[in-house]
Amino acid sequence: MAMIAEHGYHGTGLKGILDTACVPKGSFYNYFKSKEEFVAEVVVRYCLGMKASVDACLEAAGDDPVEGLRRVYELSLRASEIHGFRGCLVGNLAAEIGDADGPCRDAMQRGTGMFREQVVALIEEAQQRHLFREDLSARALADIFWSTWQGALLGMKIGGDPEHLPRVMDALLDRLFRPAKA
Amino acid sequence: MAMIAEHGYHGTGLKGILDTACVPKGSFYNYFKSKEEFVAEVVVRYCLGMKASVDACLEAAGDDPVEGLRRVYELSLRASEIHGFRGCLVGNLAAEIGDADGPCRDAMQRGTGMFREQVVALIEEAQQRHLFREDLSARALADIFWSTWQGALLGMKIGGDPEHLPRVMDALLDRLFRPAKA
Repeated sequence: MAMIAEHGYHGTGLKGILDTACVPKGSFYNYFKSKEEFVAEVVVRYCLGMKASVDACLEAAGDDPVEGLRRVYELSLRASEIHGFRGCLVGNLAAEIGDADGPCRDAMQRGTGMFREQVVALIEEAQQRHLFREDLSARALADIFWSTWQGALLGMKIGGDPEHLPRVMDALLDRLFRPAKA
Repeated sequence: MAMIAEHGYHGTGLKGILDTACVPKGSFYNYFKSKEEFVAEVVVRYCLGMKASVDACLEAAGDDPVEGLRRVYELSLRASEIHGFRGCLVGNLAAEIGDADGPCRDAMQRGTGMFREQVVALIEEAQQRHLFREDLSARALADIFWSTWQGALLGMKIGGDPEHLPRVMDALLDRLFRPAKA
């Protein structure tokens, strides 16, 4: 996962992965048909870890759905402190191979779908409490949340400014998503 | 440019580029020190082309700044009709190598900076005409515009739904960016 996050799909050779994991090539092919199937499994694991992290954020945020969403995007900041900043594994792979049919794309679709459901639930709750605007559906706002987050991660990578992501995301959560009269 | 857009930085070998262009290796090194310097030049060319396309959008939109912004994001849709969908060359490279110091990153910074200035000018005009909200600076809205656009391109790649990008971007331009009382 670390190698693919750092070097991408094409930049990570199967040989390098096997050497790092001390696994002979024959064993690999007992479990995976191809590098692509292996990377799809990496995506699934990444998304399950993400789901667990989001659940932990929600628990930490108590019953404040907006605070929950803030902690979700802040996961990227914490991850970058620990691992150095590489962005989102799924976003990076989407940019590189997202349009190629196959098991990786299927895994990305399922993974982002799972994440979307978590975000939709939070936004629905914020709307029910009149904390967020209701002229757009929770699904529409969730798509904007994911898109803006992923794009801001790219902007943070290019610009190297760690304040970029919180600035963009807080403008979204504290201004654009708020109801007209709040 | 087409090869890098399709296969990414690591997925495009120098040999493949030289073979396609029918250029001997020695000639290449007369002009570029490395593959990285060459790709940086590709980024510069891409961004200059983008700038010209945006200028053409603005001319076509007459004096309506919101229509201008709509035509700007629609550039991605037109590009995908012509070339098949590969997303934004700069966004894709940002995901893959955006955090690596060097000439490519410098070129991406300059290119996105140039684009940002064009978008800021349009948003300022929309704010002056009270078409857009004024509780956030034009720069803040421009960063959200770029981020959401780039993220929506990734979402469109994974999901394969050509309506995804216009849905997300029109919600931004026609709802979230509008003033509270409009």
